[in-house]
Amino acid sequence: MKVADRMARLVASDPVFRKDNRTMLPRTELFKDTLKKAAHAWKRIVELRLTEEEANLLRLYMDQPGYVDLHWVRIPTILYSLYILIYNIEAIVKEQQKKWLPLAYKFQIIGFYAQTELGHGSNVQGLETTATFDPKTDEFVIHSPTLTSGKWWPGGLGKASTHAIVHARLITEGKDYGIHGFIVQLRSLEDHSPLPSVTLGDIGGKFGSGAYNSMDNGVLQFDHLHIPRDQMLMRLSQVTKEEKYVHSDVPKQLLYGTMVYVRQTIVADASKAVTCCLYCCKVQCYSKAVLNYKTQQSRLFPLLASAYAFRFVGEWLKWLYTDVTHKLEAKDFSTLQEAHACTAGLKAVTTFDAIEECQKLCGGHGYLNSSGLPELFAVYVPACTYEGDNVVLLLQIARFLMKTVSQLASGKQPVGTTAYMGNIQYLMQCKCGVTTAEDWLNPAAIKEVFEARALRMAVNCAHNISKAPSQEEGWYYAYEFKAF
Amino acid sequence: MKVADRMARLVASDPVFRKDNRTMLPRTELFKDTLKKAAHAWKRIVELRLTEEEANLLRLYMDQPGYVDLHWVRIPTILYSLYILIYNIEAIVKEQQKKWLPLAYKFQIIGFYAQTELGHGSNVQGLETTATFDPKTDEFVIHSPTLTSGKWWPGGLGKASTHAIVHARLITEGKDYGIHGFIVQLRSLEDHSPLPSVTLGDIGGKFGSGAYNSMDNGVLQFDHLHIPRDQMLMRLSQVTKEEKYVHSDVPKQLLYGTMVYVRQTIVADASKAVTCCLYCCKVQCYSKAVLNYKTQQSRLFPLLASAYAFRFVGEWLKWLYTDVTHKLEAKDFSTLQEAHACTAGLKAVTTFDAIEECQKLCGGHGYLNSSGLPELFAVYVPACTYEGDNVVLLLQIARFLMKTVSQLASGKQPVGTTAYMGNIQYLMQCKCGVTTAEDWLNPAAIKEVFEARALRMAVNCAHNISKAPSQEEGWYYAYEFKAF
Repeated sequence: MKVADRMARLVASDPVFRKDNRTMLPRTELFKDTLKKAAHAWKRIVELRLTEEEANLLRLYMDQPGYVDLHWVRIPTILYSLYILIYNIEAIVKEQQKKWLPLAYKFQIIGFYAQTELGHGSNVQGLETTATFDPKTDEFVIHSPTLTSGKWWPGGLGKASTHAIVHARLITEGKDYGIHGFIVQLRSLEDHSPLPSVTLGDIGGKFGSGAYNSMDNGVLQFDHLHIPRDQMLMRLSQVTKEEKYVHSDVPKQLLYGTMVYVRQTIVADASKAVTCCLYCCKVQCYSKAVLNYKTQQSRLFPLLASAYAFRFVGEWLKWLYTDVTHKLEAKDFSTLQEAHACTAGLKAVTTFDAIEECQKLCGGHGYLNSSGLPELFAVYVPACTYEGDNVVLLLQIARFLMKTVSQLASGKQPVGTTAYMGNIQYLMQCKCGVTTAEDWLNPAAIKEVFEARALRMAVNCAHNISKAPSQEEGWYYAYEFKAF
Repeated sequence: MKVADRMARLVASDPVFRKDNRTMLPRTELFKDTLKKAAHAWKRIVELRLTEEEANLLRLYMDQPGYVDLHWVRIPTILYSLYILIYNIEAIVKEQQKKWLPLAYKFQIIGFYAQTELGHGSNVQGLETTATFDPKTDEFVIHSPTLTSGKWWPGGLGKASTHAIVHARLITEGKDYGIHGFIVQLRSLEDHSPLPSVTLGDIGGKFGSGAYNSMDNGVLQFDHLHIPRDQMLMRLSQVTKEEKYVHSDVPKQLLYGTMVYVRQTIVADASKAVTCCLYCCKVQCYSKAVLNYKTQQSRLFPLLASAYAFRFVGEWLKWLYTDVTHKLEAKDFSTLQEAHACTAGLKAVTTFDAIEECQKLCGGHGYLNSSGLPELFAVYVPACTYEGDNVVLLLQIARFLMKTVSQLASGKQPVGTTAYMGNIQYLMQCKCGVTTAEDWLNPAAIKEVFEARALRMAVNCAHNISKAPSQEEGWYYAYEFKAF
């Protein structure tokens, strides 16, 4: 039996993992249910000595957002694993690892990742929380100077966690060095109560029944909390006892690797969601009848095609992540920008509203919790927002494409997925060789058509932008162009 | 103080009408809360001797879907009022009114409207429930011959109601006369238990927290339930003791009047929803900062403009309904088709996904129940489906426009909102007179541009369809055309 089937059965046959009552549980019960499932899953993983692949599949089929999601990205390092990924496995320097990882491994401390603030979501550069170095005590003072600087949304913060990686503006010798990470204890390890100088709580109910209500997303304010200097994450840079800010020789570009990773997982999920939706549509007795209508087909079949495309592109992104990681380790940054634009664009394109369309295609049935679509929708719709608002990401990729087009004239060869743009002489004037329906079965013909169309649109768009009175106006036109 | 302000304050100041805990209540508690609110609202309406306008506003601000919604469409006739509207006030013939309305008025019976079936939503002609006349007992036998014929979705059916207007295929002398309405008792007036031959229940949780979960949408199956012959609704036609099916002289077109009415209320609601959304967006501290971005403006401002447009068109539709009603009473059907197409189109156009777009524009905040947007979305999104799936409605209006275009050649003058099409000679060749930005402040210039554009698109579309190999293919192209 395939490993995926084995893990699916393991989840389906275990009453602790039941899902049928999930949309009916009041939030408190739902949260307790999530804690019980997380503990039980961990117990099973240990008892059955599951591999990392098996454990990830178990979590996938358990399919309930919870505070442990942040730990499970990379078993067995567990705690802070997401962060470790961000800084490419060895983010936390050796001494820091020695101190924190064993505690984390035994669940003696539970960590989460505190970046977003009430007034600042995707805009990391706008974060307001400060970490001011005090040479007298050799400590950082973590502080929330405004209402909008309160950490807002982090999963695990509301109830479960004891420690956090807090992102804050590092200030030393009166100078602001921008956003850095700090390990901060928030709750007592004795009775789980918040430490003095820390105010925190759950931010309340979220969209849908079940869905993300199983997660304890939280709010957090600091009132001059002191932490030892060595709790700064020091792989990329550090502050000395003498207040000096010192860069390490590790290149900053390493930070981008993780975005590729996280967005790759979102794209993979997108294929799952579309597939589930289509399955729901198909088995609904209602839709069986209406599937014969051309209007229904014209809405459903493109989504089905997308489900396949997302599945394949998800697999390809795994390869891209491995490729980028290897190149970064060798300090080769030549494809990084293209890979980054690529994942940004794919994340935005794959998280548009297929589930809602499927819901509507099911008529009233898609609105009932028993169809599974409402919960799927509620879990999936924030993907349009987290890890970068889709419109912002589309503008990023637009900017990258415009830059690539402008560099073609200078002879700079585009790389990766944009390599085809190097063929500009041919693609701008070629005529489609397709004459019969069968010709479309030739993948090379389809590929050429897409390349010619994409390049001509990009060149046309660059032309439009160059005519705009200002660059900002130009980007606005670029966006309008996309809408057509 | 304006009547709307007075009613808003009445609701806001009464603790029974509190809404802040609505998304947190488990479904059973939420349903009890709805019963309590409905009873309390009725008590206040009687105590304060509220007018129909005031009572409607009270219900609007109470803003919680419940079984009484069907009664409250037209106070004080209360029960079956929706149905009465459908058949234009005097639907139920005098004797029937004498028997049922007093019982309904005193809440001694509680009724609802049972049309949709598990396998048949908007497609009324596909309903399968049968009402077979048995001359031996002078009764109709109501029966659900298949699983898909079970009544599915009617609000009030799950828990509250004792009686229903059931839509079923009338069969007499072995002949099927199509869909007719019947008054059917379902539950005991002694202990509220279902009658023998009746199986019913609630269809379970729905999309979102709070939202439509306050409504007891239900399922209902009949096993040869006998009802007296005079419980057929007999305004348009009746069955005699001798099994004969007899038409009255009341024109069938009366049925369309109500669609105009119901869709008019949906369009009015659409304006409310968009306004609420924009208000939410505006007051979010997050959005205050991001409102300065052109990309944010380009997504938000068209919605703001739509909110105004929907508000005005909602008012206009009230006039249209009055106008159609007067004409129907005078047996003038000349504008009925145009009015029907008009409301179908406006319903589809005004219920597209503005709320979801607003949610995304608020970033993460729009996903929190405390923003109000999730519940608003969950209450409003089914409007895309009920009272006609939007794509089906758009095809209806497309068909009407194509018919209107094809009749222009024969010199038939289009009426109402399509009257401008009569000006085809001018509009097909006119040039826009606008030369400066100020010229756009002249409403006549804007109107002419819209008329020219709409007519040219319609004529172009008719041309495309005429080239299609078959009519069905043609409509498919028409739909595709719309998508661009």
